[in-house]
Amino acid sequence: MCQLLGMNCNVPTDICFSFAGFQARGGLTDVHSDGWGIAFFEGPGVRLFLDPEPSSQSKIAEFVKNYPIKSKNVVAHIRKATQGEVGLQNTHPFSREQWGQNWIFAHNGNILNFKPQLDGSFHPVGSTDSEMIFCWLLQELQKKFGKTYPGNHQIFSAIKELTAQIQTLGESNFLISNGRMLIAHCSTKLSYIIRKAPFTTARLKDQDLSVDFSSVTTSMDRVAIIATVPLTDNENWSQLDSGSLILFEDGEIQALERTL
Amino acid sequence: MCQLLGMNCNVPTDICFSFAGFQARGGLTDVHSDGWGIAFFEGPGVRLFLDPEPSSQSKIAEFVKNYPIKSKNVVAHIRKATQGEVGLQNTHPFSREQWGQNWIFAHNGNILNFKPQLDGSFHPVGSTDSEMIFCWLLQELQKKFGKTYPGNHQIFSAIKELTAQIQTLGESNFLISNGRMLIAHCSTKLSYIIRKAPFTTARLKDQDLSVDFSSVTTSMDRVAIIATVPLTDNENWSQLDSGSLILFEDGEIQALERTL
Repeated sequence: MCQLLGMNCNVPTDICFSFAGFQARGGLTDVHSDGWGIAFFEGPGVRLFLDPEPSSQSKIAEFVKNYPIKSKNVVAHIRKATQGEVGLQNTHPFSREQWGQNWIFAHNGNILNFKPQLDGSFHPVGSTDSEMIFCWLLQELQKKFGKTYPGNHQIFSAIKELTAQIQTLGESNFLISNGRMLIAHCSTKLSYIIRKAPFTTARLKDQDLSVDFSSVTTSMDRVAIIATVPLTDNENWSQLDSGSLILFEDGEIQALERTL
Repeated sequence: MCQLLGMNCNVPTDICFSFAGFQARGGLTDVHSDGWGIAFFEGPGVRLFLDPEPSSQSKIAEFVKNYPIKSKNVVAHIRKATQGEVGLQNTHPFSREQWGQNWIFAHNGNILNFKPQLDGSFHPVGSTDSEMIFCWLLQELQKKFGKTYPGNHQIFSAIKELTAQIQTLGESNFLISNGRMLIAHCSTKLSYIIRKAPFTTARLKDQDLSVDFSSVTTSMDRVAIIATVPLTDNENWSQLDSGSLILFEDGEIQALERTL
């Protein structure tokens, strides 16, 4: 299984601290060594770094850890291959354009026998079940809403219905973002924390590293971090229930519903 | 105007040498300082580095220059903005998926009053004429060939017809690749060189840097480099005629035709 990391904030924030702990899990403190990737939205644009190398040994990961890219929406993933060989084309997050927006998707799970009818509007480049789910989700959203983006809450409701259709097929935790919001689905394991004033010092579990957030934030900042397993050991993370779908906008929960 | 750099080879090759000279043109030896980007295919997968910073000052460009990513198809671009503000969403190369393949496009030119009918299958994220041309090209290719990739030569012929339709609208040099081939269009300015055995020493124009290719290649290697302006001053570059469209596969010219 893989590990997911997401961030959704009200002001552009760097993810260096969380990424440092997350990166260590790709082959150092954990076994997820079949590649990694991270997507940073900057306005409507997106930067996507992908590497089939283990993140703990990746020179690109080392660069990203030390280069403070500020973003309101980030999706990252480290991979333990289940379906699809190790290679760049099978490295998450995946990206596609829909409605003139960049869409980013990362997945942790294993769905068996999922062979949806694809009409050609979105087609996997690689051979993972994850990219197949992403292409199918975007195709179904396009079928439902046509040529115009319907808004975050409409998308949330549609993804809830679509997720319900595939949840009997196997484990499927995912993060999806279009740079305006971030939706997370907990099938088996996903936690989140919302950091806001008064900010305190957080200490990573996976690295000997702490940061005093009060020294790098303003009282207005709000940052939601979503991860497969909590990244710090001195903060109160909320564990999502199995079958939860959650919508984050500007570092706040806008919707939390059950798909089961 | 912008600058283009492309590479098409028969074995995965790093582009560090050519990129070093190219990078200098982004704000150091030339004025193209409104961002830069580079895409490397690795099999069907693609790595895309984008930065709205001038390439001569970009930390990501510095990283790419020193990190030998081996690829058979590379497309790079440095930008002097004409249409569209400076920002990540307007930074070339642009990418889309079609037929389960990654497609990469970079453009140098200025097309006025190009407002094609878009059916929603590909839509610009940013506000450049360049991304609009790319979306229109992919849409028309999809309309013509449906759900199955027709092969490199069929794509070449179709792009020739499509390019002919827009060449009266303004200057439009471009590079397009799907990782299997690279097509280049010279509207006003584009040169290429094919390096093969016996390899010699090449010296960059824009940096004090030489490389003896005979020490880093085998006798079977074949590397085509395409650039707006030749990158070296001691090799024989071929300047393409205005209105040429050229197809490279495995470092060889497979087709060279006129669109005018």
